[in-house]
Amino acid sequence: MKGSVNIGICGLGTVASGLVNIFADNAGLLGQRSGGELRLTHIGARRDNPLCDVSGYKVSRDIFDVARDPAVDVLVELIGGTTVAKDLIETAINHGKHIVTANKALIAEHGNALFALAESKGVALRFEAAVAGGIPIIKALREGLAANRVSALAGIINGTGNFILTEMAAAGRSFDDVLAEAQALGYAEADPTFDIDGTDAAHKLVILASIAFGIPLAIDAPFKEGINVVTAKDLEYAADLGYRIKHLGIARAVGERIDLRVHPTLIPQDKLIATVDGVLNAIMVQGDAVGELLLIGPGAGAAPTASAVGADIVDLARELTVGQRCTVPPLGVAAADLVRRDLVPKEEVESAWYVRLMADDKPGVMADITRLLGAEGISIESLIQKSPRAAESRVPVIILTDRARGDAIERAAANISALPAVHGDLTKLRVENFQGS
Amino acid sequence: MKGSVNIGICGLGTVASGLVNIFADNAGLLGQRSGGELRLTHIGARRDNPLCDVSGYKVSRDIFDVARDPAVDVLVELIGGTTVAKDLIETAINHGKHIVTANKALIAEHGNALFALAESKGVALRFEAAVAGGIPIIKALREGLAANRVSALAGIINGTGNFILTEMAAAGRSFDDVLAEAQALGYAEADPTFDIDGTDAAHKLVILASIAFGIPLAIDAPFKEGINVVTAKDLEYAADLGYRIKHLGIARAVGERIDLRVHPTLIPQDKLIATVDGVLNAIMVQGDAVGELLLIGPGAGAAPTASAVGADIVDLARELTVGQRCTVPPLGVAAADLVRRDLVPKEEVESAWYVRLMADDKPGVMADITRLLGAEGISIESLIQKSPRAAESRVPVIILTDRARGDAIERAAANISALPAVHGDLTKLRVENFQGS
Repeated sequence: MKGSVNIGICGLGTVASGLVNIFADNAGLLGQRSGGELRLTHIGARRDNPLCDVSGYKVSRDIFDVARDPAVDVLVELIGGTTVAKDLIETAINHGKHIVTANKALIAEHGNALFALAESKGVALRFEAAVAGGIPIIKALREGLAANRVSALAGIINGTGNFILTEMAAAGRSFDDVLAEAQALGYAEADPTFDIDGTDAAHKLVILASIAFGIPLAIDAPFKEGINVVTAKDLEYAADLGYRIKHLGIARAVGERIDLRVHPTLIPQDKLIATVDGVLNAIMVQGDAVGELLLIGPGAGAAPTASAVGADIVDLARELTVGQRCTVPPLGVAAADLVRRDLVPKEEVESAWYVRLMADDKPGVMADITRLLGAEGISIESLIQKSPRAAESRVPVIILTDRARGDAIERAAANISALPAVHGDLTKLRVENFQGS
Repeated sequence: MKGSVNIGICGLGTVASGLVNIFADNAGLLGQRSGGELRLTHIGARRDNPLCDVSGYKVSRDIFDVARDPAVDVLVELIGGTTVAKDLIETAINHGKHIVTANKALIAEHGNALFALAESKGVALRFEAAVAGGIPIIKALREGLAANRVSALAGIINGTGNFILTEMAAAGRSFDDVLAEAQALGYAEADPTFDIDGTDAAHKLVILASIAFGIPLAIDAPFKEGINVVTAKDLEYAADLGYRIKHLGIARAVGERIDLRVHPTLIPQDKLIATVDGVLNAIMVQGDAVGELLLIGPGAGAAPTASAVGADIVDLARELTVGQRCTVPPLGVAAADLVRRDLVPKEEVESAWYVRLMADDKPGVMADITRLLGAEGISIESLIQKSPRAAESRVPVIILTDRARGDAIERAAANISALPAVHGDLTKLRVENFQGS
């Protein structure tokens, strides 16, 4: 029995500073909950961070010194990125360290190889903080719902995107305007591409789906559409129809296949996840036993992310302090039990649709549009022609359809766009009710 | 290494039938997630249940046969109650079985002794299903938030009560009317006393608070007030003021003491927990690192409760299949590290208040009421005198106060009641904003 566990941290950005502060503030609690002493002993960082005091710890400017430190039991990787971080974790695993990371891109892109390496070396690799910050969704899916066959999950898993959509909806502001504010507030990165185009959400969705369905991580899989296709007008029209628009990561079992996608989605406003606003994250899970769960909380930030990292550390330490190994596989089942499943191409995925277009305000146009939808077998649930603005002859047309395949709506949209009376691009957004999926 | 784990179930009511069905439907999954074979081998029940097929299992009419069965590794107690269930669990522990139970009353009332017995025999005792059905809140608090110092939690932890308040609010129906419907729908027991008077919620709150604050279970602790003090009018007036009324279990750290109470509570309607309706449960947790989390899901029912029981079984089996012991203490820290903390008497607990009374519609009455509140140092945030009904000289008066101690509001209420112009009892409900607590 070891009795104590030594922690090394690599990287000293905001999350790491939050973690150092948790060790300072809650050391006694962490020890009690770990069943032994939990010691932060070694920090690897190119420079100090004024947000935390590291004077009591050994600090190395070469982060690989931590990975090779014989005294370190658990290495916490908080440097981010997928190149040096990967080398660092591989080095640490090869030196027998257990790993805790908050790095969603690394897990999504290289998790299969890293998990295999960790398994071969008999060490654990944990990543609760990689998805939805402080919400313990990895643990909930992997352990709390272990008796369930998950049928679907849907998550608001990018706080920046949710903040932008929320502000656009509340104040009718433009995307560019709110994005600039989000950057000024520190919610969005200087280069916000991954938040905007769905890449960040796709990384997280891939991780969630792997655990939910017992499939290997497959980062190239999800269909991605960013929030930049949504305008303030869409949010307003959706609200008029009783919907909110949220940027969702969605994973569903469809027969033997998996439907995996990230896109702006209309959700009925009386569905709780539709009311989760601002930088909050939320994940809805539907399982055959549990029914539907919804977990809501802060998806980013130093302290919430450090909370998740800290939980992983305590989990490992509970076993290590008594000389046991960690028995929970990274994705909930042993690597050998993961089963690759085909993805449903987006062309085949059925859902209801919201379609917006600009058309001339004259007789016969609506008949043409509805005919072209009907030709693809698409039923219309509602069609609203807005009043024209003064001195304009073009009007916005908003259509809600019944369930239709992606390729059917694409063909109909192309044909509608080709009408002389229709101008500019059509906006097509999926509508999800999440009933009995 | 054992490789396989044998499960015995005692009791064959709705939850047990849900669990038997999970074993039938998800056997392969359970085995993969357990890291070995998970076998349901022995069921103890006085009679069969048409909701599940037990023909493949050994069935004993004496449930103690399961507790003494040398082949059983984990005994699942689903008979309920606090007498036979206690004997059964003690017998099983003394025979070296690990225990999984959904029995909140038993854990709340006898958990300290049962945990000590289990610890002395080196077996685990798990109870995820005892609180909030399918929501994995025990695991979230005990493990997912292990790096946090919890400052407060608040939960809608009785689905029957939430259903009744939701229906009363939606349709302006009376308590008795909705209760009768809840009984007809099977949401409320034939004797609904424990759901109505807060006893059931208090049991669950005691369990949550013990984990959140590392205190021994103390069932006599919480102040309890049931939902039967709330009228449809209160729900309507609260809504007019921007509030919903929910029956909450609340636990807060107040300096070195703990504030523990169960009562109908006004919550601002823009707070997410205020919008959780029907039979759903929800638990909000505030921690120093995570900030605020909200978990929402089904709090009762056969399948959701069985989902939680199944998660406990898989947790145990992951360790047992490889010959390890379960390292997570029942309340998150070892029994020796639990620290008894004084409770804040309800007289000292501060909150804002909603006060409703009937008064004569004549000059000077409002002045008398506000003077009596002021004499106790209670500031008024708003005071609304409703219009009198035709041919009535009495009017409802609704007061929202600033924060005031329980004893101050009691004294003010007694003095106001004694005014000749005030008739009948005052209704006094606490208002909680859950900001920065």
